[in-house]
Amino acid sequence: MSVAKKHPVFEQELRSDGSFVPQKNLFTVPFGYGPGEHRPEAGRYRLLWMKACPYAHRAVIVRRLLGLEEAISLGTASHFRTEFGWEFSLDEGGVDPVLGIRYIKEVYDAEDPEYKGRPTVPIVVDVHTGQGANSDYFRLTNELETAWAPFHKTGAPDLYPADLRAEIDELNERIFHDVNNGVYKAGFARSQEAYEKAYDVLFERLDELEERLSTRRYLHGDRLTDSDVRLYTTLVRFDAAYYTAFRANRKRIADYRHLWAYARDLFQTPGFGDTTDFDAIKRHYHLSGLLTSEGANPYRILPKGPDLSLWNTPHGRGR
Amino acid sequence: MSVAKKHPVFEQELRSDGSFVPQKNLFTVPFGYGPGEHRPEAGRYRLLWMKACPYAHRAVIVRRLLGLEEAISLGTASHFRTEFGWEFSLDEGGVDPVLGIRYIKEVYDAEDPEYKGRPTVPIVVDVHTGQGANSDYFRLTNELETAWAPFHKTGAPDLYPADLRAEIDELNERIFHDVNNGVYKAGFARSQEAYEKAYDVLFERLDELEERLSTRRYLHGDRLTDSDVRLYTTLVRFDAAYYTAFRANRKRIADYRHLWAYARDLFQTPGFGDTTDFDAIKRHYHLSGLLTSEGANPYRILPKGPDLSLWNTPHGRGR
Repeated sequence: MSVAKKHPVFEQELRSDGSFVPQKNLFTVPFGYGPGEHRPEAGRYRLLWMKACPYAHRAVIVRRLLGLEEAISLGTASHFRTEFGWEFSLDEGGVDPVLGIRYIKEVYDAEDPEYKGRPTVPIVVDVHTGQGANSDYFRLTNELETAWAPFHKTGAPDLYPADLRAEIDELNERIFHDVNNGVYKAGFARSQEAYEKAYDVLFERLDELEERLSTRRYLHGDRLTDSDVRLYTTLVRFDAAYYTAFRANRKRIADYRHLWAYARDLFQTPGFGDTTDFDAIKRHYHLSGLLTSEGANPYRILPKGPDLSLWNTPHGRGR
Repeated sequence: MSVAKKHPVFEQELRSDGSFVPQKNLFTVPFGYGPGEHRPEAGRYRLLWMKACPYAHRAVIVRRLLGLEEAISLGTASHFRTEFGWEFSLDEGGVDPVLGIRYIKEVYDAEDPEYKGRPTVPIVVDVHTGQGANSDYFRLTNELETAWAPFHKTGAPDLYPADLRAEIDELNERIFHDVNNGVYKAGFARSQEAYEKAYDVLFERLDELEERLSTRRYLHGDRLTDSDVRLYTTLVRFDAAYYTAFRANRKRIADYRHLWAYARDLFQTPGFGDTTDFDAIKRHYHLSGLLTSEGANPYRILPKGPDLSLWNTPHGRGR
C-alpha cells in the first residue's frame, strides 16, 4: 500500500478520528445597513467563484434568480486547484480582469499575512479597495436576498420570505450539515467509521427529503426558496461526482423518484441549469480534488459517464 | 500529483499506449480423451479460485450447475492479493487443506521456476502430484461441460449443446473481449484514450446484449448455456465494483431493463447467487486490486453501497 501524500491545506481540517470538519471563515462582516456592515452598492462588489464549488454555486444561482448581475459582477476562477489555491487561469493573462489578481489567495493574504486556512469561494470583494468583504458561504445568499433587495430585478422571487425564515433556517442547517457538507464528510473521511457515519446520516436525510418532496413541489411548498438553492447544488453534483469520487453510493439521485424529478425541475429553471457546468464539476472532483492530490486517480482518467443528458428529460413536477 | 507505484506483477501487461492486454496462460493442456490430454477422473482434481475473480467464478458456477462438486473438489484462496499473489489465508493455518500449499504461486513455481507472469485463478491442480493441470480460463468451462460429461449429475443442463457451439463460441469471444475483459481494459487504462475506447466498446456491447435479451430469456433462447455464465460473472460485479472502481459509469446494470432482470434471474438460480460473495467482491476491487496498490484508496475505505438486496427482487423473466 502506498503512503498518501499529506495535504497541507486540508490537514488542519481532518480530525484524529478520521472525520472532516471544515474551517471557519475569514470575512464574516455581513451586508446590511447596521453599523460596521457592508452597505450594498451597485457596481462596488465582485463575487468570486469556481464552478465546481457547491457553496459558491449557490450564490451565483441566487444572484441570477434575483437579477443582481448588473449590481454585482462575477469573477470565475479555474476549477483546478493549484498549490496557491484558486487561480484565474480561465481569464486572459491568468488575471481577473477587474481585480487584477492571479489567485484568490491574494485577497486573504492582504487581509491577514499570517492566514493559514484555505482561501475559499464564494468571496465578495470590494472592487474599490480590492479587500475581501464577505466569504460567509453559509449566510451570503440570505444577505443577497434581504440586504440587497433594493437592487433586485422587478418581479424577482422572494427566496427568503419573512413568514418562512425560521423554517428555512432550520432546514438549511440540516441540509448543510448532513447533505452539502455530508458528502464531503463521507468523501474526505480517513476511517471506515467516520465514512459510514457520514454516509448513514446523508442517506437518512435524503430519504427524508424524498418523502418531503413527494407532496410539495419545493421544499417549503409552492414557493421556490433559499433552501431549494442549497439542496440543488449538492443534488446536481451527486451522480456525476459524489457517488463515485466520495463513495456516496447507496443510491444515485436518479434513483429517487421525487428528488430526481425535483432536481430536474430546478435544473430546467433559469438560474440553475444555465449556471451548472458539468464538465467543470467532473474535472474538479475527479482530477483535481483532495482525493486526487492524495493519489486516488494516478493516471488522471476522467470518467466518461454518467449520461448527463437525462437532466433535460421531462420532470412532471408542475402537476 | 503523486507518482504511482509501479506494479511489477501487472507492468508487463500494460502497453505503452496505456492499454491493458492480459498475459497468456501457463497450463493449457485440456481435459479430454486424446493423447497427452488430462483424462477426467473423479477425486483426482482440485479447482482453485478466489471469489472476486470473474473468470474463476464461471468455473465454480458451471461445476455447481453440472453437479461436479463430488468429482472435483474446490479450494478457495483469499480475495486479498498478497505480494506472492493469491494466498490460502481463509484456511486454517493459512494452507490449502488438500494441497498443503500456502500460495497458488507454488503451483506455478513448481512448473516453471523462471515463470514471471501472474499466477492466476482458476487453476485445476492434480491432487496426486500437486502439479497444475489447467489454467485455461477461457476454455475450462467448456471442458467441464463436455469432457467431464460422464461425471455430470442426472438431469444436468447441457450448457454447451452441439447444435449451438458455433454460436456460443462466437458470442463468448465478444463477451470476453468487450465485456469480461472490457471492464478491466477500462479500469486498468493508463491513458484517457485507452479508457474511453474500452468504455465505448463495453457499453456498445451491453446495449446490444440488452436488445438481444429483450426477446429471449437467455442469450441463446430458452436454454441456459455457457454464454450466460460468462456474462453473469461480469454483470454481478458491475454495479458493486466496476461502475465506481473501474469508471465503467455510463450506466449501471440496474439501469438496463432487460439486462438487470436477466442478471437477477440468473442470480436467483441455484449455482449463481449462492456462489456470489458480494462482500469478497467489494473488498477485492475496492481494497485490494491493482488500483488500490497504486494508491487509489489511500485510507482503504470500503464503499457501503450500493443496495445489493435488490438482487433478490422479482425479475419477471419467466413470462
